[in-house]
Amino acid sequence: MNPTIKDVAKYANVSIATVSRIVNGLPGYTEDTKKKVQEAIEALGYQPNAIARGLINKRTQTIGVLFPEVSGMLSSEVLEGVENAAHDGGFSVIVCNTTSSGKRTVKYLRLLQEKRVDGIIFASENVKEEYYKIFQEMQVPVVLVSTASQFNLPFVRVDDYEGAFRATEYLIQKGHKQIGMIGGSFEDPIAGVPRMKGFQDALEKHGLDFTDQQMTSNEGYRFQNGKESLPLLLDKLPLMTAVFAASDEMAIGAMAAAHQLGIRVPEELSIIGYDNLKIAEMCYPALTTVSQPLKEMGQSAGEILVKLIKGKEKEAESRYMPFTIVERQSVRDLRKK
Amino acid sequence: MNPTIKDVAKYANVSIATVSRIVNGLPGYTEDTKKKVQEAIEALGYQPNAIARGLINKRTQTIGVLFPEVSGMLSSEVLEGVENAAHDGGFSVIVCNTTSSGKRTVKYLRLLQEKRVDGIIFASENVKEEYYKIFQEMQVPVVLVSTASQFNLPFVRVDDYEGAFRATEYLIQKGHKQIGMIGGSFEDPIAGVPRMKGFQDALEKHGLDFTDQQMTSNEGYRFQNGKESLPLLLDKLPLMTAVFAASDEMAIGAMAAAHQLGIRVPEELSIIGYDNLKIAEMCYPALTTVSQPLKEMGQSAGEILVKLIKGKEKEAESRYMPFTIVERQSVRDLRKK
Repeated sequence: MNPTIKDVAKYANVSIATVSRIVNGLPGYTEDTKKKVQEAIEALGYQPNAIARGLINKRTQTIGVLFPEVSGMLSSEVLEGVENAAHDGGFSVIVCNTTSSGKRTVKYLRLLQEKRVDGIIFASENVKEEYYKIFQEMQVPVVLVSTASQFNLPFVRVDDYEGAFRATEYLIQKGHKQIGMIGGSFEDPIAGVPRMKGFQDALEKHGLDFTDQQMTSNEGYRFQNGKESLPLLLDKLPLMTAVFAASDEMAIGAMAAAHQLGIRVPEELSIIGYDNLKIAEMCYPALTTVSQPLKEMGQSAGEILVKLIKGKEKEAESRYMPFTIVERQSVRDLRKK
Repeated sequence: MNPTIKDVAKYANVSIATVSRIVNGLPGYTEDTKKKVQEAIEALGYQPNAIARGLINKRTQTIGVLFPEVSGMLSSEVLEGVENAAHDGGFSVIVCNTTSSGKRTVKYLRLLQEKRVDGIIFASENVKEEYYKIFQEMQVPVVLVSTASQFNLPFVRVDDYEGAFRATEYLIQKGHKQIGMIGGSFEDPIAGVPRMKGFQDALEKHGLDFTDQQMTSNEGYRFQNGKESLPLLLDKLPLMTAVFAASDEMAIGAMAAAHQLGIRVPEELSIIGYDNLKIAEMCYPALTTVSQPLKEMGQSAGEILVKLIKGKEKEAESRYMPFTIVERQSVRDLRKK
């Protein structure tokens, strides 16, 4: 017969409540006691039953993570961080691929509700009102990562306006004056508008004109968007010496278009990206870019969520994560002869 | 008070067993009945309780997926397929990142055991005896994806030997005679030995000599491995006109090394990869490679697992998935002048 929690308590000579706290990762015991209980669990081969436990302590030790696209390079780095933090906190992670479909997102939220997950991480997408209503019904903590919302939900992200401002300023400091931008969507309040605004403000701060001719906007942030944007931008701004792309994938798409057009990077055209995905160091020339600490952002969001679930914090503070400019080979310094 | 399954059955005028079958995605009712029950569920706002249900039907409608590295590009494409199949079958997916650590893998398997998952997908790694013992204890179906094992477990994969043989033959057919290989590990019975053997056999079949000088072996399959291998290979085989790399990341690493050494790809050196990751079309020049249908492999593995769990099949057949050679710009046809 399987040993029970009572057997473990008896063997370790502690109370059942203590064993329960240890098994569930709650505080309130000494290291010594923890060691004794762990030895008892091992000696008896005790397997806590997560299902039965879920009925008692009302927790399933599970969190749900919603991504717009699981196989996106950005998502997988964030996921690794979330998964780490969850694992350390004794939680497992259910991954949901919303494919940016509102219908599928709602279906998943209902599924997570049914599974009684203890908390939710919502990544890279706008929180619609219908999602927020479900969050409220579920009464579990929600943490946003790499996005923000109109609702009062804690988030972990980089300041997109600042990141774009600094990327543009970096190009200006390298002596570039004719600078274009491959931008995102004007409908996107996170990665779209703030990055375009940061670009514009940096130009104006440094006394450079800004006109609509210097920018393309795109529905998505993918390789293909960047590849298609570069020729359009060159048409509008033929003397352009540098481009800021609102994502690494778009920057690498622009690089591919430049190769095709016979334009040398960085000799004739400098390119700076945004994200610092793994491909940024794999492409040729290696991409200079704004580094978002994606794995750390996932980890941080996971840690905040675990603390909220365990009730250690009532209100979570949102976190702006630091970004850096990673210098590689795709930007030319025009001041050097 | 929350409505119960009895309330739904009464409202829809069907038996409780029928509602249960519908809610759990089992067969045995007409479309009409299904519609009636769905309307009743909606009208009453019935929320099936997954935890309580898990205690009754012994299923948690959850599967566990173990990957050696969640943020690997290969893993994320396979995961998308698994997640799709699971979603269609009414299952949710717990993702576990083993980081190729045996200790962490065992810990995760114990966690999945505790969570009473209904099945497991095990990806891209060797099944050690200690893992297999846990599989047996758990008494749930296991499907391998992108790997195989000494144990009698169904798998979904590409025939690595055949893929490597065809890649090498492709280079020979383009007129190349001095061909090198950036290989994996001799300890790796899946992506290592079979791909190296396929390379050697293709050369010999076409009357080309094979010596150890034509190959490097590597612990891993990453960008850095390829980047470090190319100079070594060029030392041993200075007249080499083409390279077969056992992974796309290695192929792109070799490409970066060639760029650094001032060797033009494909004019002076042709490169073919293996995998067809998304980066294969983003690098410059775009990479010709052996395409593994990663998303489909994940989907297929997920579907097999769901069928095994639902008891529709007792024994699953393993599947070899078709591969293709995707021609892009990294291989030169030497027969054309």
